[in-house]
Amino acid sequence: MSGLTHQDKDGRVRMVDVGNKPVSTRLAIASARVFMNQAAFTAIRDGAGPKGDAIRTAELAGIMASKRTADLIPLCHPLPLTRARVAIEPDETAQAFLVRAEVATDGKTGVEMEALTAASVAALTLYDMAKALDKAIRITDVQLEEKRGGKSGDYVRGTTG
Amino acid sequence: MSGLTHQDKDGRVRMVDVGNKPVSTRLAIASARVFMNQAAFTAIRDGAGPKGDAIRTAELAGIMASKRTADLIPLCHPLPLTRARVAIEPDETAQAFLVRAEVATDGKTGVEMEALTAASVAALTLYDMAKALDKAIRITDVQLEEKRGGKSGDYVRGTTG
Amino acid sequence: MSGLTHQDKDGRVRMVDVGNKPVSTRLAIASARVFMNQAAFTAIRDGAGPKGDAIRTAELAGIMASKRTADLIPLCHPLPLTRARVAIEPDETAQAFLVRAEVATDGKTGVEMEALTAASVAALTLYDMAKALDKAIRITDVQLEEKRGGKSGDYVRGTTG
Amino acid sequence: MSGLTHQDKDGRVRMVDVGNKPVSTRLAIASARVFMNQAAFTAIRDGAGPKGDAIRTAELAGIMASKRTADLIPLCHPLPLTRARVAIEPDETAQAFLVRAEVATDGKTGVEMEALTAASVAALTLYDMAKALDKAIRITDVQLEEKRGGKSGDYVRGTTG
Amino acid sequence: MSGLTHQDKDGRVRMVDVGNKPVSTRLAIASARVFMNQAAFTAIRDGAGPKGDAIRTAELAGIMASKRTADLIPLCHPLPLTRARVAIEPDETAQAFLVRAEVATDGKTGVEMEALTAASVAALTLYDMAKALDKAIRITDVQLEEKRGGKSGDYVRGTTG
Amino acid sequence: MSGLTHQDKDGRVRMVDVGNKPVSTRLAIASARVFMNQAAFTAIRDGAGPKGDAIRTAELAGIMASKRTADLIPLCHPLPLTRARVAIEPDETAQAFLVRAEVATDGKTGVEMEALTAASVAALTLYDMAKALDKAIRITDVQLEEKRGGKSGDYVRGTTG
Repeated sequence: MSGLTHQDKDGRVRMVDVGNKPVSTRLAIASARVFMNQAAFTAIRDGAGPKGDAIRTAELAGIMASKRTADLIPLCHPLPLTRARVAIEPDETAQAFLVRAEVATDGKTGVEMEALTAASVAALTLYDMAKALDKAIRITDVQLEEKRGGKSGDYVRGTTG
Repeated sequence: MSGLTHQDKDGRVRMVDVGNKPVSTRLAIASARVFMNQAAFTAIRDGAGPKGDAIRTAELAGIMASKRTADLIPLCHPLPLTRARVAIEPDETAQAFLVRAEVATDGKTGVEMEALTAASVAALTLYDMAKALDKAIRITDVQLEEKRGGKSGDYVRGTTG
Repeated sequence: MSGLTHQDKDGRVRMVDVGNKPVSTRLAIASARVFMNQAAFTAIRDGAGPKGDAIRTAELAGIMASKRTADLIPLCHPLPLTRARVAIEPDETAQAFLVRAEVATDGKTGVEMEALTAASVAALTLYDMAKALDKAIRITDVQLEEKRGGKSGDYVRGTTG
Repeated sequence: MSGLTHQDKDGRVRMVDVGNKPVSTRLAIASARVFMNQAAFTAIRDGAGPKGDAIRTAELAGIMASKRTADLIPLCHPLPLTRARVAIEPDETAQAFLVRAEVATDGKTGVEMEALTAASVAALTLYDMAKALDKAIRITDVQLEEKRGGKSGDYVRGTTG
Repeated sequence: MSGLTHQDKDGRVRMVDVGNKPVSTRLAIASARVFMNQAAFTAIRDGAGPKGDAIRTAELAGIMASKRTADLIPLCHPLPLTRARVAIEPDETAQAFLVRAEVATDGKTGVEMEALTAASVAALTLYDMAKALDKAIRITDVQLEEKRGGKSGDYVRGTTG
Repeated sequence: MSGLTHQDKDGRVRMVDVGNKPVSTRLAIASARVFMNQAAFTAIRDGAGPKGDAIRTAELAGIMASKRTADLIPLCHPLPLTRARVAIEPDETAQAFLVRAEVATDGKTGVEMEALTAASVAALTLYDMAKALDKAIRITDVQLEEKRGGKSGDYVRGTTG
């Protein structure tokens, strides 16, 4: 037995049955980092001018993508999100942007994939807006930071299993 | 002037005008890496059984996502892709999966974002299928490997620009 | 403090948290008017022939759009609609079509945006079908007529706040 | 004969045949106005703070919606947009916001519906962000301002046909 | 009176009101058969090689399509699916593939259309992958096999109503 | 070698490269039949009343679905359709509805899948509207009738290949 919940007993992939799981409040926080060269970093960081804003565009793209998760990830269950927020902050020392996405639902399964999809698409949107200035941009450390609710218990990166 | 092509002269974001650019063949190759613990790595690597296949599910999700890029990335132009392929290989030493996405079009603008979106969503799908076995999975090094066609010239990671 | 619920305390947009709101039955009715010239008005009004029907096409487009609201309006929550209906009637005196959309859900937040999106897309579809006959068509008075359910109380246009 | 190009000779609706039309550059500009009360108008107008921005959110929603037009309007042809831009300006005297959307393509048919859809969805997004402060917001004058390219000739509102 | 629940009393189509129906567990199983010539049948049946798999691609496409049902079928209610599985088996004697889709929800209305959409899209995907070898492929017997839950009672094809 | 164009040399599925194929006009016609009991057949056939119309709803759903084909069928190329039309006629003798979908493009690959998807979704929509009256409805004979354009030559069902 593989331990992969997305496969049935003869190995075929499926959307797993969550019908018997109780509805509960679930939260997930995911992050990503986007490294770019000095010219691109400065342009994006300072792009928050009076009429436009690359960072806000990326945050919004992340929020919108969280609602499309079940369309993109084949075996994800569609979930009615109750909250979504993406925050991007520059890290001067690292010459990188830190993306942090928080998503919540009252549902039968968790929202890790929704938070990770939001963080990924926000990072890709930053990439898109900076790519004319740097072709070597790198998105890295797309990962789960925190997860609350559900049978498998809470998770905080670095402190638990 | 910021150098950000997605902002007009007063800073407002926009989908840039590519109307005057010629149609030409354009190719992009992007990659990503997905690190996971031994249990998850083994389960995914060996999931290629007679009736199911986590890796093939992720490859297919990446191909399908490449066609949704303009829906996800706010300022991307819709492009009629002429080719898409995602290949995922296990790296035993690193205990990671390497995702490689190739996309091509005959269009007025490049397909970097399509290749990067394909690689990201394939990586997220692997994550989804392995997350029951490892909550600390990390997607990293989402980056452009190669780009051909278009006015700005070819790019091969590590050798140019 | 701006009073804008879609912004957090430092002004960043977000999908607001409705996790603690109770599920209740909510209804919204929205309307729109579409003014066009005599030739276009007559063609659309009389288009209800034995085998085709511009008005019914627009009504159906409105119903379908109500289900896409959370995809279109960035900070809208996805909601499982329990009812949707769009009715379009000609107003001979005004040489206009009146669009009326009713949408309901059992959810944690209201369906005003779903009703308004349905009315808008139905109006745009009428426009599309008549535009060969009149380039000066005008969609106007897209507005909420009635709203029931939820903490903020009922609303009927012209009678309340 | 009805003059409705979206109906065939026995009245059935269809997506009309544009196969024999030449590819040419086409531009459309559409506008909309959003009227709201003083509290809502001020909050939205001044929402352009350091970290959030209701107006920019609405502009971006309009750009993204222009790419979804063929999904929403049943008989619209899918078109590869080459340019999209939405600008929203406050009109102090009218206590309203003016939405202006410009869209272009190199295609076989025009982009009026894309520009009108962008203007409508941008207006609906402003509505969504202000509705907590005013339930009587009104979207009005959704209309074509200008159209260039294509066999039927140019159109500028107020000066032609 | 027509008996068509999707039409209101004056005949206009609508998404019917399910607001007063209780939430209950609902299951539907649908099937389809895909007939093709010997060359195509053999190629698809044996396509389950070490690195690719036409049948698994079609199964996955069916699962993903089940989540898009309300986008495709105009008067379907959006439903949060709790389970989805598509299995395709070759029938040597008939030189056909049998598609079987199972879908479940906890909702106010049934999931027959979700199961039928999954079966149809899985069948179309098989068709797409085999069409280079046979232009006369035929998809047939798309039908409901079983339905459980909801007021109208259980249904098993061949034994009831 | 399997002969399956959607698999590369090591068997992995992909969206095949059509970059070197010339753009040409391509047409496809697909059909489907929907069998139902007398009560359902009569209700749908006579549903073409003054204000509603089950058949026209299904035709429109088919047209809209043709534009979503590349979203549904994993390895289909996105194509800019230039024409789409779905016609449904009752067959009194067979107590069935005949669905016929015609789709055209100027593109690098054919539109068989678009026509077949249109016919399938139109048939499913008829099913949805009649299912309250008959749980045993059967969609059958989803097949290609005609195909024109492209290197592989024309095809007319029953006369060629």
